[in-house]
Amino acid sequence: MDSYLIRVNGQGDHAPMLDVHLKTNGNSISLGKMKARKPRWAVRASEMSKKTFNPVRAIVDSMKVEPNPKKAMISLSLGDPTVFGNLPTNDEVTRAVKEVLDSGRYNGYAPSVGYQSCREAVAAYYNCPEAPLKAQDVILTSGCSQAIELALAVLANPGQNILVPRPGFSLYKTLALSMGIEVKLYNLLPEKAWEIDLEHLESLVDEKTACLIVNNPSNPCGSVFSKNHLQKILAVAARQCVPILADEIYGDMVFADCKYEPIATLSTNVPILSCGGLAKRWLVPGWRMGWILIHDRRDIFGNEIRDGLLRLSQRILGPCTLVQGALERILQQTPPEFYHNTLSILKSNADLCYAALSAIPGLQPVRPAGAMYLMVGIEMEHFPEFENDVEFTERLISEQSVFCLPASCFEYPNFFRVVITVPEEMILEACGRIQEFCEMHYQGAEGAQDLECDK
Amino acid sequence: MDSYLIRVNGQGDHAPMLDVHLKTNGNSISLGKMKARKPRWAVRASEMSKKTFNPVRAIVDSMKVEPNPKKAMISLSLGDPTVFGNLPTNDEVTRAVKEVLDSGRYNGYAPSVGYQSCREAVAAYYNCPEAPLKAQDVILTSGCSQAIELALAVLANPGQNILVPRPGFSLYKTLALSMGIEVKLYNLLPEKAWEIDLEHLESLVDEKTACLIVNNPSNPCGSVFSKNHLQKILAVAARQCVPILADEIYGDMVFADCKYEPIATLSTNVPILSCGGLAKRWLVPGWRMGWILIHDRRDIFGNEIRDGLLRLSQRILGPCTLVQGALERILQQTPPEFYHNTLSILKSNADLCYAALSAIPGLQPVRPAGAMYLMVGIEMEHFPEFENDVEFTERLISEQSVFCLPASCFEYPNFFRVVITVPEEMILEACGRIQEFCEMHYQGAEGAQDLECDK
Ligand SMILES: Cc1ncc(COP(=O)(O)O)c(C=O)c1O
Ligand SMILES: Cc1ncc(COP(=O)(O)O)c(C=O)c1O
Repeated sequence: MDSYLIRVNGQGDHAPMLDVHLKTNGNSISLGKMKARKPRWAVRASEMSKKTFNPVRAIVDSMKVEPNPKKAMISLSLGDPTVFGNLPTNDEVTRAVKEVLDSGRYNGYAPSVGYQSCREAVAAYYNCPEAPLKAQDVILTSGCSQAIELALAVLANPGQNILVPRPGFSLYKTLALSMGIEVKLYNLLPEKAWEIDLEHLESLVDEKTACLIVNNPSNPCGSVFSKNHLQKILAVAARQCVPILADEIYGDMVFADCKYEPIATLSTNVPILSCGGLAKRWLVPGWRMGWILIHDRRDIFGNEIRDGLLRLSQRILGPCTLVQGALERILQQTPPEFYHNTLSILKSNADLCYAALSAIPGLQPVRPAGAMYLMVGIEMEHFPEFENDVEFTERLISEQSVFCLPASCFEYPNFFRVVITVPEEMILEACGRIQEFCEMHYQGAEGAQDLECDK
Repeated sequence: MDSYLIRVNGQGDHAPMLDVHLKTNGNSISLGKMKARKPRWAVRASEMSKKTFNPVRAIVDSMKVEPNPKKAMISLSLGDPTVFGNLPTNDEVTRAVKEVLDSGRYNGYAPSVGYQSCREAVAAYYNCPEAPLKAQDVILTSGCSQAIELALAVLANPGQNILVPRPGFSLYKTLALSMGIEVKLYNLLPEKAWEIDLEHLESLVDEKTACLIVNNPSNPCGSVFSKNHLQKILAVAARQCVPILADEIYGDMVFADCKYEPIATLSTNVPILSCGGLAKRWLVPGWRMGWILIHDRRDIFGNEIRDGLLRLSQRILGPCTLVQGALERILQQTPPEFYHNTLSILKSNADLCYAALSAIPGLQPVRPAGAMYLMVGIEMEHFPEFENDVEFTERLISEQSVFCLPASCFEYPNFFRVVITVPEEMILEACGRIQEFCEMHYQGAEGAQDLECDK
C-alpha cells in the first residue's frame, strides 16, 4: 500500500463521514463514504403515520367485551347500509357497470381528475341555476373520504386550523391531525335538532382558520339543516371570510317532511368545496366513488385551488374506471322509486326507533330528519353504575348483545349512535333489548342519591 | 345603552381581537370576538399542493407543438397498455368482476386494508419458501401508486431522504417532495443494461436515508436485474441498514430469455415493502388495484410499520370492492397463455423497435428485457439543431407526428422513451418516421463542426 488519505467530513447535522481513498500499487480505489459509526437497523414508523389516528377504532378496539352468548348479536354500529342485505342497490346501477365491463373500453387510465364525460355527468346532475356547475368544477375521487382528504390538503397548511362539528364524523380529525392541521370543534345543539351554535362557531374563527366543515345531512346526528339555518352559517363564513368544505355525502337523503338544500345553492359569494359520492344514496360504499364540486362564483379559490386539486389528484389517480364508466348511466337511469324506497324504509325505521327509545326512562333520543343515524342521549345520572357512554354501550353488548357506537367516537360523550339501515325486526328487537337493559340499570332520583351516599 | 366593555385580546401570534359585550337595557348581548382587522378573502392553495409536482406533466404541458397535419399522430408516450385495443385483458378477469356484481355481496365497505380473503389470495399467489407471505403481510391499495404513497408515508419523515433511480418513474419524486422528503438520485448505467451504479448508490446513503427504491423491471428502461445484481443491491441495503421499497408493478413481465426474481426472495434480512398491482400484467390500470407485500423476516419493521400502514390505510379506505371481490379468481384463473401472449407481443415489438432504431445514425437504443418500454440515447452532438431531448421530441411531433416522452421526464436528458405496447404496424411506421426525422437532421462530425463555426 503506497499511501492513504482519510478525510473527516462532518457537515450540518449529518453524521461524521470518513471519505476513504486507498492507493495500492498506484491504483486508486475509492471505498466511498463510510459512516464513522457502524449502521444499525432502526426503522421507525413516520410521525405522520403515528398521528394518523382513528378515534372510532381506538375506542371500539378498547371495548374488549364479549356479547351475551344467549342472545344473537345485533350490530347497530356500522355506517354501511349493505351489511344486512335489506337495502340492495338498484339493478340499473349494477347493469351499468356490467355494460362497462362488456365494452372493454374502461380498463385504461382515466385522467387523474376523472374522465371528462363523467365529470360532465356529475356536473349536469348537480347543476342548477343557483349553483351552476361545469365539468371543470368536478373532480372525481376514490370515495368521499378522498374528496375530503384532497379538499383539506389543498385548503390548509400545517399549523392552520379547521372548524369541525361536535358531534361529527371522525375522519375530519383523523385527516387533519395527520397533516398537522389543528381541529377546533364547534358545538351542535341537540335541543335545537343539532343546529350549529353559531355564536360558538364564530368565536372559534381566527387568522389561522383555513376552512369550516359543514356536514349536512349529518353523521352521526341524522339531522338536516333548514334553509334558514344554512343561510346563517353562510353569513358567518362570509363575514369571517372562511371557505366551506361541505360534506354532503348524505345529500338528498332526507325524509319526506323536510327538504335538503345543497349549501352552495344558497350562496353567491362563499367559496365552497362540496364533497359527495355514490356510497350512501346509491348504497355502494365499497365502490369508492366520490367527488369534489367546486363552487366559486366570486373567483376566490381561483386557479390556485383548482390547480392544487389537480396536482393532488395525480398522487393516486382517482377512482376505479369501471365505476367511472358507469357513472353517467347511474346518475341518469336510476329510477326515482329506488331513492324513495330507501328513504321510506329509513324513515319508517327512524320513527319506530325514535318512538321505542323515547319511551325508555333515562334515554333521550333526538328525532332524525335524514341520513342513516339517530343519536340518543343517556341521562347518566340515572345510570350511576356506568362511568360514561363507553361503559354503557359496553355493558349493552355484554348483557344484550346489542352494539351501538358510544358517541365519544364523535367527541360527544353521554350519547350513543344508532344506525337505522338494519331490517325493521332487528330495530324492534334491539329497542326491546335496550329497554330491558335500561330498566335493569335505571335508578330514579332517590336511587341515584342512595348510591351517592353509599360511597 | 347602559354600558359596554371592549377587551383587547392579542395573544401569541393571533391577530388582536376585540371581545365586545354590549349591555342594553340590562340585557347583555355578546357579539363574540370580532377581529380588529376586517377579514378579507385570501384563500391560498397549501404548500403541500404546491409541492406536489409531476415533472412529466410539467414537461409535456410545456411542449406546445402541433403534430404535422399531413401525418396521423402516433403516440408512443403513455404507459397504458390498453389505449390501442391490441392488448385486451383476459375474459376470465372480466368475468370474475361480473360474477361479483351478480352476487351483490361486494358493495359494502371492506376493511381498510382489504378483505381478508383477498389478502389471503394475494399472499398465496406470491408466497414461496424463500419469501413466505401470509394474509397479514398484504395491504390492498388503490393502485400501485397508493401502495408507494403509503410505503413512503410510513417509512420517511419530512427532512429525511430516499434513494431513487435515475432514470426513474416520476411518481417517487412527486410523492416525496409533496411530503417534504428529500430525493437523492442514484445512477443507472445504460452501458450495463441499466444496472445500478452500486458505488454511487452507496455513496448517497447517510443518517437520514429512510429507504431505497428499487424498481425492477424498470419504467422507463425496460431493464430487468439479474439475480446476481439484486444480491449486490441487497448487500448495500444490508450493510447500510436501509430498508427497500421495491416497485415490482412490472413483476413477471420479462421476456422469455431472462428471469424475474422478486427481490424479497433473495434476502433473509433486509426488510422490504414490495409494491405491485393488477395494472400492467393484467392490463387493467384503470381498475386501481394495488398492494403492499410486507417482507420482514428479521422483525425489523415489526408491528410499528405494520400498524402505521394500517392507520394510513384508514384515510381513504382502499380499492374498489368489485375488483377486490374478483381478485382471488383473477389471480387463480387467468390462463397462463394470457401472460405468455402479452409477453410474446411485447418481446416481438421490442425486437422490431430495437432493430429499427439501432440502424438509425445518431440513435443508441438500449435493448429491453421486460416491462413495456425501451430507452433510446440521442447523440446530441450529431443533432446540433436541437438543444436537448425535449426539443428533439418536440420536433419529432411537429414534423413526423410521433410522440415519445423526452427522458428529461425521468431526470435523464438526451434520451427518449418508447412505449412498446402499441400494435406492430404502428411501431414500424413510427420507427420509419423516426428514421426519416433523424436522417433529415443528422450532422456528421464535420457538419456539426461547420455549424459551430457558423456561429
Ligand atoms: C359524514 C361522512 N362523510 C364521508 C364519509 C365517507 O364516505 P366514503 O365511503 O365515500 O369515503 C362518510 C362515511 O361514513 C360519512 O359518514
Ligand atoms: C414503475 C411504476 N410504478 C408504479 C406505477 C403505478 O401503477 P398504478 O397504475 O397501479 O398506480 C407505474 C405506472 O405506470 C409505474 O410505471
